[in-house]
Amino acid sequence: MPEETAVAFTYDTATYAVMMATPSDLEDFAYGLSFTEGVAQPDAIKQLEVVEDTVDGIPAIELRMWLHADAGTGFAERRRSHVGPTGCGLCGIESLTEALKAPPRVGKGRIYSFEQIMQAVEAMSPHQTLNHETRAVHAAGFWSAQDGIGPVREDVGRHNALDKLAGALLRQGRDAADGIVVLTSRVSVEMVQKAAAIGAPVIAAVSAPTALAIRMAEAAGITLIAIARKDGFEVFTHRDRVQGERTSDVA
Amino acid sequence: MPEETAVAFTYDTATYAVMMATPSDLEDFAYGLSFTEGVAQPDAIKQLEVVEDTVDGIPAIELRMWLHADAGTGFAERRRSHVGPTGCGLCGIESLTEALKAPPRVGKGRIYSFEQIMQAVEAMSPHQTLNHETRAVHAAGFWSAQDGIGPVREDVGRHNALDKLAGALLRQGRDAADGIVVLTSRVSVEMVQKAAAIGAPVIAAVSAPTALAIRMAEAAGITLIAIARKDGFEVFTHRDRVQGERTSDVA
Repeated sequence: MPEETAVAFTYDTATYAVMMATPSDLEDFAYGLSFTEGVAQPDAIKQLEVVEDTVDGIPAIELRMWLHADAGTGFAERRRSHVGPTGCGLCGIESLTEALKAPPRVGKGRIYSFEQIMQAVEAMSPHQTLNHETRAVHAAGFWSAQDGIGPVREDVGRHNALDKLAGALLRQGRDAADGIVVLTSRVSVEMVQKAAAIGAPVIAAVSAPTALAIRMAEAAGITLIAIARKDGFEVFTHRDRVQGERTSDVA
Repeated sequence: MPEETAVAFTYDTATYAVMMATPSDLEDFAYGLSFTEGVAQPDAIKQLEVVEDTVDGIPAIELRMWLHADAGTGFAERRRSHVGPTGCGLCGIESLTEALKAPPRVGKGRIYSFEQIMQAVEAMSPHQTLNHETRAVHAAGFWSAQDGIGPVREDVGRHNALDKLAGALLRQGRDAADGIVVLTSRVSVEMVQKAAAIGAPVIAAVSAPTALAIRMAEAAGITLIAIARKDGFEVFTHRDRVQGERTSDVA
């Protein structure tokens, strides 16, 4: 059965968020969520401590980050305007505008053949270590034509898996523009926003996207491939990065 | 493909949360989330308006609630201490303590036979209207021995589906103690906390629970049934509410 641990993200001792997450690849998670949520760029983080604690005997983790002095303002600014499950002081329409903000448009990226995309999706399984044990965690991975499958990260939460992958790419100095972000999960709009934040031009997902995710991928310039099966997949947006036959174009 | 819409929860014009959700059963969602998050009891809500808007041409919804004057303080208090994806002013350990707070202990509830539990789980499918169209939404439903299947609510987010169900029960004046909360999804700790908030003594889920969800169900006095298949299910906690053979007790 999958583990789930309360993980607090703190910056200069103030809590930004508590996520329920799988307690693995925590450094990646710290750097990744900080980046995709717009709280802190990797070089703004002066120090990261992974502090293991217990609350009423239950294991809990604090990802304790210290920011460089000049980065502190960004966090305060972000805290004020960020929308999420907690009051933010904004009115309804301001909050909705913030939540639906068009993501940054990604760069050109590369072009992939049908076979390469199939290969990227199929390459995930051997690396889904936790899922083989539990059958209940999502994975986010990175595949490039040059290096094949790169980091694969897992979590009970699909957003967390993608944040961990983002952190792994940032910490390894890899450019998301050089490959494909592969997701075993459904694609919600927040997954697209996170992929856009790291500049990933191609998403290939096993499950279905939501209508809003498709719309956001269109706006971000992302090629959204989803419903990947053994015999093919569907391309929902920007199909110019996909070459070859046997794809169904539903855009 | 499933719809996903940004839904803002505002109380007296201040935003508490923006959730990405399926735009159905929005009144239930408003009452349910307000209750399970501890923001407002149903009778504290003086008025609810479902305001449909667009942001850059994208549909968005505000659940605009007005609270009775004496209920306002509870919201302010909750905003201060609530932990979630947004800064809350608490330090790491305070936030973790808040997130892992033991839920209220549920009441005695009723006892169910193996057949009744199977029946409750099987009763869901005909009511999963959206899922039949999209194959990509979760459902939360309520089954009682007396009335059979009651409200079933769907959403792209499993927490949202449960919040909608909570709202439906509250608005229909039904006591969660009289039946079984049936979930088509995996069971995370937050699902157990929400079920405990509405006093549901029995959860039956199709998919697996996390380790922390089991621990929380144990603490809340909830009978957690999960991994329901065509031929049976597993009882993880408080199996005294389950009678009969063919259940595997993994507690």
